[in-house]
Amino acid sequence: MQIEKARELGLCYGVRRAVEMLRDASQKYGSLQTLGPLAHNRVLLQELECQGVTTVDSPEKLTGPVVVVPAHGIAPDIMDLLRERGFATVDTTCPNVAKAQSIASDMAQDGLTIVIYGDSQHSEVRGLLGWAREKGVASLDPCTLPFIGDSSASQKVGIISQTTQRAESFASFVQQVCGAVLATSREVRIVNTLCDATRRRQAAAAELARTVDAMVVIGGRNSANTRRLAETCAGLVETYLIETAEELDAALLRSKTRIGLTAGASTPDSSIEQVECRLRRL
Amino acid sequence: MQIEKARELGLCYGVRRAVEMLRDASQKYGSLQTLGPLAHNRVLLQELECQGVTTVDSPEKLTGPVVVVPAHGIAPDIMDLLRERGFATVDTTCPNVAKAQSIASDMAQDGLTIVIYGDSQHSEVRGLLGWAREKGVASLDPCTLPFIGDSSASQKVGIISQTTQRAESFASFVQQVCGAVLATSREVRIVNTLCDATRRRQAAAAELARTVDAMVVIGGRNSANTRRLAETCAGLVETYLIETAEELDAALLRSKTRIGLTAGASTPDSSIEQVECRLRRL
Repeated sequence: MQIEKARELGLCYGVRRAVEMLRDASQKYGSLQTLGPLAHNRVLLQELECQGVTTVDSPEKLTGPVVVVPAHGIAPDIMDLLRERGFATVDTTCPNVAKAQSIASDMAQDGLTIVIYGDSQHSEVRGLLGWAREKGVASLDPCTLPFIGDSSASQKVGIISQTTQRAESFASFVQQVCGAVLATSREVRIVNTLCDATRRRQAAAAELARTVDAMVVIGGRNSANTRRLAETCAGLVETYLIETAEELDAALLRSKTRIGLTAGASTPDSSIEQVECRLRRL
Repeated sequence: MQIEKARELGLCYGVRRAVEMLRDASQKYGSLQTLGPLAHNRVLLQELECQGVTTVDSPEKLTGPVVVVPAHGIAPDIMDLLRERGFATVDTTCPNVAKAQSIASDMAQDGLTIVIYGDSQHSEVRGLLGWAREKGVASLDPCTLPFIGDSSASQKVGIISQTTQRAESFASFVQQVCGAVLATSREVRIVNTLCDATRRRQAAAAELARTVDAMVVIGGRNSANTRRLAETCAGLVETYLIETAEELDAALLRSKTRIGLTAGASTPDSSIEQVECRLRRL
């Protein structure tokens, strides 16, 4: 069996930077709490726990004095709350997410209704909705947008994307929204907030998927960029999304002569190594 | 024969305002020169000539001391040139066109490449290109845009429309441009600069066209909004675009029992009256 890794895979610049910031911070402060998961990968969170970094899901559960802002970012009102309560912060917000937050904030300032292409329950999207103040709505389906089909709506609309969505899907979403609102809206402003690391991982995965018998995608099932990677590959070849090496289905993969490997942007190097190692032993 | 006029037709607010400004100005200054036609209608220009308002096609031909800026507007460098040469101006630029100029200027300021949906030879579009400084390109066909298909282009694109285009065509143009550039561009900002009078005339013409045996559209053949009106009607019923009552084809129309009338936004009331009168005599 031949195993080939995608040209680009695994920890992106943003998550790697966050992990390094936490290593330095935990040396300085000892144990730390992250408000929401640092990123959507269980193995990564387990590795951080060994360093004394745990995750809490609400500000009420913070025991302080230092709180970690995760790579997906948080809403500005939560940030204000943390400051008011006297917490020191280690802000690992990915620079790409911070840029999207700043764009959402500018659009709100300019009076635009802000549409975020993404799942409204995703932590990055929840943060972006906060930055859009009362002017934001998140959706993956143009038909669910409240102002679609409202011919009396004469408004200015801004469209951004969760940073880790697929470029093609975002373009299609934008075209549908434009088609629906252009006749009545005064302005539609679309800013491409897609992250280039995500695009490069998708391109590398697709390139590899075209040449193998099966693809194994390693990452969190609740990681948006990992799911997009798996979708990209599944359109091209038999694809398996797994979180850990234990989930590999030996019976299914043993018959293959060439297997491709890729991993989401929050998948630690150790996960990739373990999967590679287990595949070689099949 | 029954003759029915569209709910809204003929001189729009902008052209009516320009005509009134010229009536006042010619009383004050005597003879006047317009830099380019006030609007695209020969009958209107003939009526103005009777008031002492003539048209010249370049600044060199102005004999001053007062120059009329036409309703379609002019480029800011031409405006600067007129001021430098000491001309007084009567600026009849339509407020809708002035708003589009200001949006083009803001987009240029923000570093956007500005796409104007319109014919590059139309005087309003030539003016808008001036306001877009070196950053503008005019087109009716997305395929002709220089940056389409250039995957290395990473730019910010602004899209506006000549004020008198059809909303559906503009929406379709925008969707095509978005589809082509979204993957690589950082921002696409679309501002709806369509004029509402144009939209209302088109809606009224379409409504009427559905109920008659033939439509007669009165207006200049080089008038963009008149041509759009004729296109709208031609999709629904037998349609004749004429500039004057003399062009009515009696042989073709005599057999009809119900004829609809509409007129472009620069068509004077007198043209409509003459056509109506001639139709009644058929």
